[in-house]
Amino acid sequence: MTRIQLFELIRKKKSFLCVGLDSDLSKIPSHLLSVEDPIFEFNKRIIEATLPYTIAYKPNLAFYESRGLQGMESLRRTMEYLDKYKEEVFTIADAKRGDIGNTSSQYAKAIFDPESSGFSFDAITVAPYMGEDSVKPFLEFPGKWAIVLALTSNKGADDFQFFSDAHGKYLFHKVLETTQKWGTPDNMMYVVGATRAEMLQEVRNIVPGHFLLVPGVGAQGGSFQEVARYGMNSTCGLLVNASRSILFASKGIDFADMAEKEARSLQKEMEALLLGRGLL
Amino acid sequence: MTRIQLFELIRKKKSFLCVGLDSDLSKIPSHLLSVEDPIFEFNKRIIEATLPYTIAYKPNLAFYESRGLQGMESLRRTMEYLDKYKEEVFTIADAKRGDIGNTSSQYAKAIFDPESSGFSFDAITVAPYMGEDSVKPFLEFPGKWAIVLALTSNKGADDFQFFSDAHGKYLFHKVLETTQKWGTPDNMMYVVGATRAEMLQEVRNIVPGHFLLVPGVGAQGGSFQEVARYGMNSTCGLLVNASRSILFASKGIDFADMAEKEARSLQKEMEALLLGRGLL
Repeated sequence: MTRIQLFELIRKKKSFLCVGLDSDLSKIPSHLLSVEDPIFEFNKRIIEATLPYTIAYKPNLAFYESRGLQGMESLRRTMEYLDKYKEEVFTIADAKRGDIGNTSSQYAKAIFDPESSGFSFDAITVAPYMGEDSVKPFLEFPGKWAIVLALTSNKGADDFQFFSDAHGKYLFHKVLETTQKWGTPDNMMYVVGATRAEMLQEVRNIVPGHFLLVPGVGAQGGSFQEVARYGMNSTCGLLVNASRSILFASKGIDFADMAEKEARSLQKEMEALLLGRGLL
Repeated sequence: MTRIQLFELIRKKKSFLCVGLDSDLSKIPSHLLSVEDPIFEFNKRIIEATLPYTIAYKPNLAFYESRGLQGMESLRRTMEYLDKYKEEVFTIADAKRGDIGNTSSQYAKAIFDPESSGFSFDAITVAPYMGEDSVKPFLEFPGKWAIVLALTSNKGADDFQFFSDAHGKYLFHKVLETTQKWGTPDNMMYVVGATRAEMLQEVRNIVPGHFLLVPGVGAQGGSFQEVARYGMNSTCGLLVNASRSILFASKGIDFADMAEKEARSLQKEMEALLLGRGLL
């Protein structure tokens, strides 16, 4: 999916909501545990309920890998199901991969090449620590995206991302400056946590045109009003992710209804923000 | 496996060789392609041939994930096979994982918890960019290890790992200093590339007691004589990895014999180095 197509999708659905499929078997409604593949069934119901309000789905691969081959089969079925809607949803493998060049090439095939792995996500999240040859293999697939970690939403972000040089430049500034030379706003995005909304202005100064994937709204405590204020650009430029606040809005048989309600509520706020910026 | 057990294994086999199972379907001998599971068959033959000279095996998960569920089944069978030798080999999931705390916990289950995922590796490689909560979940499994990326062997290591503060401290120094507070030499190791052997002295000044996993020997060009000179400590403290130089020593029907020859040759060099340090 191109950047223009993504922006058109945002305008069509009046939303920049990404739903994170962090589908934890220990947290899904207990009445689903008796079906053959509870995780797939849960995801299917969540997708059906949230599809009108959502432009992107982001399976968090850890939650599938933790259940071994059975979990990977749930992921495979989820992506097969989402493929029916490929014109109206952008898919992100939240995998935080990154290794030496020949290995990153294999990870890229795992996520992007259906002939090789069976998977054909639109995007993958990538860790920058190993530098250029660890990121570039993900940029070699036309129409696919690498979403590079810049400033994350967790407490541990303080440990290294704010390591600074003699001029007060932080590591995450350096990552933004350097990595943008490897790709373009048409094949690269950045992860910038909502819990650091005040830093979004700085991020936008360095990467004005790139989309930002913003986790940390809801369960992690970030305000997405602030994220929109500082992070939005002329093609929206934001994918705001919510996971637990939607997936586990209820643990009862009404979980899908409550997920829909939560997604619709976020979409309404997003619509107002898009209107306010003259983007609709 | 504890650090003492690992050192005993090194003394018993007179080797600190780790064989990286970067088992690329496009590079394995063509006569194996007709069997049901060529990757598993290849791994099994490589393990049988190199076992007397090898103390650790390190499947590179990218090469399995790139083949989807079929690849993960090859990995499952490989680990099941290695389980027969669990008293005499240390197993490393080369996965470069790292995410916010609740997600790293899931990755830890994927690699360490056989009840959950079917896998029970001894160790996993971990990327430090996201900080403390991204690493700590891997340290919560007794007897298991997190191997944190410090200074990698690839060209891209220059991009961020040498980002320096006002006092000339590099990011990789900071990573070594900070992360060692999260674990101990008994549950944490570091990745330090052989292509940077001259930096090993600096690494050893910061982490004198930790084991170092050293890739980049052979195909990537590092000298492991130099690695031993600068990196060895009183419990050896080194796992030197070789992948392509062993796996693809021959592409013919003699591939296992040639892999054995290469592994034996490395073991002989290692034996001399261990003797020279008075560790045997």
